[in-house]
Amino acid sequence: MVRKNKKKTCAILIIGNEILSGRTKDQNVSFLALWLNSNLGIKIEEVRIIPDIEKEIIKNIKELCKNFSYVLTTGGIGPTHDDITAKSISKAFKKKYSYNNEALNILKKYYGNQFNDPRKKMAKMPEGSKLIYNPSSAAPGFIIKNVICLPGVPLILKSMVHNIKKYLKPGAKIYSYSINCQTVESKIAFELGRTQNKYKKFVEIGSYPFFRLGKIGVSIVIRSSKKRLLQSCHKDIIRIIKNKKIKIVKGT
Amino acid sequence: MVRKNKKKTCAILIIGNEILSGRTKDQNVSFLALWLNSNLGIKIEEVRIIPDIEKEIIKNIKELCKNFSYVLTTGGIGPTHDDITAKSISKAFKKKYSYNNEALNILKKYYGNQFNDPRKKMAKMPEGSKLIYNPSSAAPGFIIKNVICLPGVPLILKSMVHNIKKYLKPGAKIYSYSINCQTVESKIAFELGRTQNKYKKFVEIGSYPFFRLGKIGVSIVIRSSKKRLLQSCHKDIIRIIKNKKIKIVKGT
Repeated sequence: MVRKNKKKTCAILIIGNEILSGRTKDQNVSFLALWLNSNLGIKIEEVRIIPDIEKEIIKNIKELCKNFSYVLTTGGIGPTHDDITAKSISKAFKKKYSYNNEALNILKKYYGNQFNDPRKKMAKMPEGSKLIYNPSSAAPGFIIKNVICLPGVPLILKSMVHNIKKYLKPGAKIYSYSINCQTVESKIAFELGRTQNKYKKFVEIGSYPFFRLGKIGVSIVIRSSKKRLLQSCHKDIIRIIKNKKIKIVKGT
Repeated sequence: MVRKNKKKTCAILIIGNEILSGRTKDQNVSFLALWLNSNLGIKIEEVRIIPDIEKEIIKNIKELCKNFSYVLTTGGIGPTHDDITAKSISKAFKKKYSYNNEALNILKKYYGNQFNDPRKKMAKMPEGSKLIYNPSSAAPGFIIKNVICLPGVPLILKSMVHNIKKYLKPGAKIYSYSINCQTVESKIAFELGRTQNKYKKFVEIGSYPFFRLGKIGVSIVIRSSKKRLLQSCHKDIIRIIKNKKIKIVKGT
């Protein structure tokens, strides 16, 4: 694992019984991981999925915000009784849970004369939060300290994510190569291990078997923030594969 | 959140850089959550995704195995250098990391004269482990204390999961209803909150907006191990929806 940019690490905290019950499949982790890396060079180093329980949210926020540069939460910022993210984070940070005036104005304008109490709740957040604007459905996310709260609905989250950019300091971009070959892991395991030792912590080498259209193969994925080292590692692995007369295939 | 069967809770620990990088989307959480609930009445109460780093695995195993009846790990039990789950769990439990004779025999039989060192590594595990048989690709998972280690490849994991049944004590089955209606959350938020208060911790009421084929709606999901209370709660919610003249739709 490449851990050069300690200050540009990130954890995701998914708050939602519907993910834990299996009813809903998470779609945000993969999107956020790819987006954060390609746009900001920020690496996801841990993900947790927890239930809609206040003490669980408080405990996890406290732990994660100490250990990572940023914590992104998804879920629990809607109008219903099970949306308790903003209130719980207020408690975790000992901030007042109160109406944000800017959020109130945005929602008032959006809902007009249908601006009822459950909708007003979506303007309540920890005092001192800054807003993450929401071009889809108005209700904003927010950032308080190093914790950024986004909704769980993937379409809405995707439409908001570019609005978190200004709050995050970029890290070094992580480059990667994938080498897909027609072999089994155990045929290249020894040499891959030796190559990992050569590049130590500067290049991360992963090996992932795949089964596609009746064929088995291995994807070797190498990642690093050091472009030259990565290219050198790539050459080494290509040499190993060619020496073993293993066929390289496109795509996985 | 229904927390009646404290002793039948479960956490999932996903070990794999490929999930954290966004390259691979996890498919196992949803499958395992549904399977464990419908077959054994065991509830997933936390999921963590962590990198292939020994100290992270050790730290998380120690934490989770104390707080949950069972911990299921996925990933990191293959033949390559980045497969370090078995070794790390041996360290977490201060058990010798050594060859399991039964696993060695299974793999020897499966691979015949192609049984090389990387493949032999798949028979190494914490001393005292029991095997989880693998009908797809022979390499077994294992159980040690309350930690059950499965592979990360979804097809293989699915083929093995019925073999964990004999090691797990069942909990009370969780029943559920979904009520899908053409409305927005804020129109029913107040009444749902009141209904949640009525049934307290015995019924869990979740509200999830959906967007499908140009229509917006809300799925109300209610879950409980108490069948009668659940039916009564279901009736209450149907009454609320009918009183508000909201249309109930099929599917989400």
